[in-house]
Amino acid sequence: MGAAILTDLLTEILIPVAAVVGIGFALIQWGLVSRVKLSPEKQGPPAGSNNKNDYSDYLIEEEEGLNDHNIVVKCADIQRAISEGATSFLFTEYQYVGIFMVAFAILVFLFLGSVEGFSTKSQPCTYSKDKYCKPALANAIFSTVSFLLGAITSLVSGFLGMKIATYANARTTLEARKGVGKAFITAFRSGAVMGFLLAANGLLVLYIAINLFKLYYGDDWEGLFEAITGYGLGGSSMALFGRVGGGIYTKAADVGADLVGKVERNIPEDDPRNPAVIADNVGDNVGDIAGMGSDLFGSYAESSCAALVVASISSFGINHDLTGMCYPLLISSVGIIVCLITTLFATDFFEIKIVKEIEPALKKQLIISTFLMTVGIAILSWIALPSTFTIFNFGVQKQVRNWQLFFCVAIGLWAGLVIGFVTEYFTSNAYGPVQDVADSCRTGAATNVIFGLALGYKSVIIPIFAIAVSIFVSFSLAAMYGIAVAALGMLSTIATGLAIDAYGPISDNAGGIAEMAGMSHRIRERTDALDAAGNTTAAIGKGFAIGSAALVSLALFGAFVSRAAISTVDVLTPKVFIGLIVGAMLPYWFSAMTMKSVGSAALKMVEEVRRQFNSIPGLLEGTVRPDYATCVKISTDASIREMIPPGALVMLTPLIVGTFFGVETLSGVLAGALVSGVQIAISASNTGGAWDNAKKYIEAGASEHARTLGPKGSEPHKAAVIGDTIGDPLKDTSGPSLNILIKLMAVESLVFAPFFAAHGGILFKIF
Amino acid sequence: MGAAILTDLLTEILIPVAAVVGIGFALIQWGLVSRVKLSPEKQGPPAGSNNKNDYSDYLIEEEEGLNDHNIVVKCADIQRAISEGATSFLFTEYQYVGIFMVAFAILVFLFLGSVEGFSTKSQPCTYSKDKYCKPALANAIFSTVSFLLGAITSLVSGFLGMKIATYANARTTLEARKGVGKAFITAFRSGAVMGFLLAANGLLVLYIAINLFKLYYGDDWEGLFEAITGYGLGGSSMALFGRVGGGIYTKAADVGADLVGKVERNIPEDDPRNPAVIADNVGDNVGDIAGMGSDLFGSYAESSCAALVVASISSFGINHDLTGMCYPLLISSVGIIVCLITTLFATDFFEIKIVKEIEPALKKQLIISTFLMTVGIAILSWIALPSTFTIFNFGVQKQVRNWQLFFCVAIGLWAGLVIGFVTEYFTSNAYGPVQDVADSCRTGAATNVIFGLALGYKSVIIPIFAIAVSIFVSFSLAAMYGIAVAALGMLSTIATGLAIDAYGPISDNAGGIAEMAGMSHRIRERTDALDAAGNTTAAIGKGFAIGSAALVSLALFGAFVSRAAISTVDVLTPKVFIGLIVGAMLPYWFSAMTMKSVGSAALKMVEEVRRQFNSIPGLLEGTVRPDYATCVKISTDASIREMIPPGALVMLTPLIVGTFFGVETLSGVLAGALVSGVQIAISASNTGGAWDNAKKYIEAGASEHARTLGPKGSEPHKAAVIGDTIGDPLKDTSGPSLNILIKLMAVESLVFAPFFAAHGGILFKIF
Repeated sequence: MGAAILTDLLTEILIPVAAVVGIGFALIQWGLVSRVKLSPEKQGPPAGSNNKNDYSDYLIEEEEGLNDHNIVVKCADIQRAISEGATSFLFTEYQYVGIFMVAFAILVFLFLGSVEGFSTKSQPCTYSKDKYCKPALANAIFSTVSFLLGAITSLVSGFLGMKIATYANARTTLEARKGVGKAFITAFRSGAVMGFLLAANGLLVLYIAINLFKLYYGDDWEGLFEAITGYGLGGSSMALFGRVGGGIYTKAADVGADLVGKVERNIPEDDPRNPAVIADNVGDNVGDIAGMGSDLFGSYAESSCAALVVASISSFGINHDLTGMCYPLLISSVGIIVCLITTLFATDFFEIKIVKEIEPALKKQLIISTFLMTVGIAILSWIALPSTFTIFNFGVQKQVRNWQLFFCVAIGLWAGLVIGFVTEYFTSNAYGPVQDVADSCRTGAATNVIFGLALGYKSVIIPIFAIAVSIFVSFSLAAMYGIAVAALGMLSTIATGLAIDAYGPISDNAGGIAEMAGMSHRIRERTDALDAAGNTTAAIGKGFAIGSAALVSLALFGAFVSRAAISTVDVLTPKVFIGLIVGAMLPYWFSAMTMKSVGSAALKMVEEVRRQFNSIPGLLEGTVRPDYATCVKISTDASIREMIPPGALVMLTPLIVGTFFGVETLSGVLAGALVSGVQIAISASNTGGAWDNAKKYIEAGASEHARTLGPKGSEPHKAAVIGDTIGDPLKDTSGPSLNILIKLMAVESLVFAPFFAAHGGILFKIF
Repeated sequence: MGAAILTDLLTEILIPVAAVVGIGFALIQWGLVSRVKLSPEKQGPPAGSNNKNDYSDYLIEEEEGLNDHNIVVKCADIQRAISEGATSFLFTEYQYVGIFMVAFAILVFLFLGSVEGFSTKSQPCTYSKDKYCKPALANAIFSTVSFLLGAITSLVSGFLGMKIATYANARTTLEARKGVGKAFITAFRSGAVMGFLLAANGLLVLYIAINLFKLYYGDDWEGLFEAITGYGLGGSSMALFGRVGGGIYTKAADVGADLVGKVERNIPEDDPRNPAVIADNVGDNVGDIAGMGSDLFGSYAESSCAALVVASISSFGINHDLTGMCYPLLISSVGIIVCLITTLFATDFFEIKIVKEIEPALKKQLIISTFLMTVGIAILSWIALPSTFTIFNFGVQKQVRNWQLFFCVAIGLWAGLVIGFVTEYFTSNAYGPVQDVADSCRTGAATNVIFGLALGYKSVIIPIFAIAVSIFVSFSLAAMYGIAVAALGMLSTIATGLAIDAYGPISDNAGGIAEMAGMSHRIRERTDALDAAGNTTAAIGKGFAIGSAALVSLALFGAFVSRAAISTVDVLTPKVFIGLIVGAMLPYWFSAMTMKSVGSAALKMVEEVRRQFNSIPGLLEGTVRPDYATCVKISTDASIREMIPPGALVMLTPLIVGTFFGVETLSGVLAGALVSGVQIAISASNTGGAWDNAKKYIEAGASEHARTLGPKGSEPHKAAVIGDTIGDPLKDTSGPSLNILIKLMAVESLVFAPFFAAHGGILFKIF
């Protein structure tokens, strides 16, 4: 058991330094983006005074000069409208979520406090019976505090992401006048701001929390890291509301806008005459940016917590080996540095000149970061880990070597890359699958949907094998700790992943602004090309999110099982099996709720948009400005109201099952939800992505085959639009929310495990 | 341990008598149906001579008299065309399936024979070490024989069902002239013929096989009933090909016919001008009738085998208590008698006079049979079971009382009823869910699809709880034997279930024949009403099939685990977990294949139909007969070719996993496929059923709300047609095939268990 090369002191320095470097880098990128000037106050007339005239001009097609004054004013104006809409929605959402947060914090305190009857006496540690650990009440208090910390960090992450995105979208539009390369860099840099801020922020808060908690916990590492799991729960529960609320918001607006605008009135996407257009653009920011940010932050927080809690009862924790203990945090620290270098490849080392280079450039980001990170982990595993150490494996100790742990992290990392590429293959219109789907539009919407669903189902196969192989290898090498670090490996390049992910909605918004500002077709073509690449990267991002969610929730599940002191989860016992089958059903129940919510909200939106077209004279001619605010309100109200039932389903299930049926059934539920949810999540988001890009494939008409299906407005194109609309809630609401379902139920079970183990299973105790 | 009241001799008599009574009853029903005369030879001109004139008359709308000569001739002619098409397809299918059957029989022999190196020496029994059991080679031979027996019985069942259905469809049409009640009775009686023949036949063959095998096996009941499991494997593997092949056939034709006919050319469903119309009607018979028949026969055979193999190692088997041992067969015997009485309620005790009475009459069948069966099981459990007996429960013996076993059977039976009613609620247009889906057609096909998918997801919730409760109760009371008899309980009313199920496609065909024969609108309205009720009952039938499949495959899984001598299937071991997640993926892989197959075949069909409309002058005007044969050939070729890959996936997975990864991973795969597959199967078939009935709701225009959406050809109706078309492969191909996937993999694992236990897991042995 050779000591690690990296000293404790260096570890204590390295982690915060990496976090601060990440934040600094994000600020530099922000600075670079802000160089694109967008100041109507100085250059144009006051925006408030002649709004009406501004909008009435929007329909005039003009070949603008590079410094056209009016265009800049308009872009700034639209950007402000989007930003205000997004800010106001998030504030409303946070009010409701804040109430939940406080209520749930009280619940955490009460449940955990009641385990030992709010006792303030120290108790023997679970895993080293000869030592005394802190009382259960302390655990309750600190879990509650870390829950709140995680929740607030998650909210801040989402909010910051949204702010950056709405800061960058009009700037991207304006840069598109200078060329596709400039626009790409602006959008990508803005994505990077979000990625780095989020990754660094998450790491820093966690690091500070651990160090502060240690002042009280001292030598009781087991108690310390159990309390820290609240951080993961807080992060993920906010992510749930962000994803579901934002997802419903964005898709209600998008579907509503498309159904009337594109299908009935035959006006282009993002046309300023469409009353739902602002709501649609706001939606991209609150759903795809803020929601995604919270989601990935949640994954990151949870996988760190899972790894830490398992490590705390391994030889790292028992021998108080700080560097070994901090290995999970060190992975993230290295990740920030690696991603920083990777980003430079996209923004500084190479320059994009033509449209075709966009997708390869984004793909290269994934490849470069994966390669660099592999080297990084190898070095880290060599210097930060003792050559041999022991890991807790459901009651027995397992010997692990440092190179074995390297393989665990690396296989997670590479599985992420495989999932990313498979997702790209199934959702990019450069390959056969999407082209087949586009081709099936010849015979109408029905075959398009049949082919799209089949594509989604098929796209599950390889990712599941990739996940299965990483689970098998990392589990065999280092038990549940191996799984947790594999998840961290997959998430280690989160800054890059988020950057290319946030890039998508920013480009989408940029296109919308170009259309609304009435800029020329050439600009719109450029932003469309950015956006098409963005659809694929968004799908890749979702693939990562789902893959990591699967690993994370398995790791959390393992930690839960250890903490609840179960030694086997035997499918052959009825308690477990019914949990398994009901758990496998939960993703369907959840999806039914979210899909229906989007559908109902979209119907309301359609009615409002139709009403405006029918009752406001001059709207379709573009002489009168539509009433954007009502549409924004419909989306806001619907998403706030509709996010509660699915949220309650996810948050209450573990509590009810654990309390009434006990830990075995809960284990079954977690396993069932995991293995079933991951499939639906992958297939839903890939189906949606494929439909979206099949439509774009027909619209772009870049190949002989595509031209036979087009142009816009042809029958196959109409069929493709229907597919795209169906895909919207699948890929942006129900699909990605499922990640959170599986993670959140697992982390919640982990946090409440002591309570369930002590008092759970009431029903079986009675009968 | 009081002895049973029913003596062995009585048992030996009761079972075959019940089977013979069932067959006799079926023949009587057939006789009653055949009273409807359909003899063009005597009454009309020879059909072959003036075919062309006949068909050219079809488009003339006429108010026919009750004995119109020409109509009868036409109906007979169309019926013959459908029957010939179906027969020829099934023969082609059986040729391919026959090759598979022989090849797989050889595989069964080789794998099982090689367990002990084809030894002919007796060996100690697994569960009573002091006794000697028959050699492994005998097991291999008898398993192979029972595999072939099951396969052939399954093929015969499907074929007979198809023959009866094609015998009855035109008769139903003709009876519709006299009133809806008469037509209903004809269709229902024909369904009953199929139901009773199938149930009785399955029971009889199994009973004879057991008695013949016993001549060799003598006292070695363990070996005897292990060999009998081959019967289940044979039955289910044929069912797979029947369901998949038939499903692809029927939906390729249906989707192809609808896409061009209804959507492009705006001609009604089943219009004789549509070249794919005969293929469509043939499809109903080979897919919904023959496929469904094989499927439910497979379920029945498997649940009997699962119960028998578990019972053989319980005190029944060890003490050679024949009556107790035959309890599973006695349940089926009582079921036949109960269903016989139930049938009389629909055909003799009450008469249907108006359309509204159809659905309640079918629903009453379910309720009456369930009530009567509950009484039947209670009596049976009292007279056939000893008051206490022991059941093998993964290595330990569990004490069970006779009334506990009654509860196991009864809960399965009642869970079936619950599933049936939930299915009805979600798929009948008399209730809110389907009406909501219909309403969403206002905003187009996209919202229709979103709402439909959400409905399907939602419809999973209660059935899963019903299955979970029955699993929990029966598992707790009588371990895996409890599950097996619960499955038998659900299937005990199979004769009635199949009758109301087969009723659907027969009515569908009757409507098609009415349309093709150019009968008046009033007739068509009557057959449409029959058909709408049939859609719901078809969905209910699928609900039963899925629910029982879930229980059956769990029982088989339990039997497999016992036979493979595994004592726990611990999710926390990596071997099991990767099996679980990959198993949960298999239904998606399988669905991707079958959906894509239907899509591709439908595209070919569309091209052919378009080609005929474009190239055959006078076709649309109805003066020239289309080339039906080419469309039939397209469906035939597509289904034969496309059924192989999904078939191979299902058949090879257990072999590959068991041989290379071993029994633990295989257990994981089975559990994963079960808990994931059952959800997709339920949601797919309910979504499809709901879309179909939403369309019918708009077409019928029976309420104020429905009229605002219609009439046929309106925009909402067009959107509804798209939904219906998407639902076709979901509800008739991929959804119902999934039952077979989960059952078949389980029964195959069970049959090959000795091989896997002895030689499996090569990969883990190497590394």
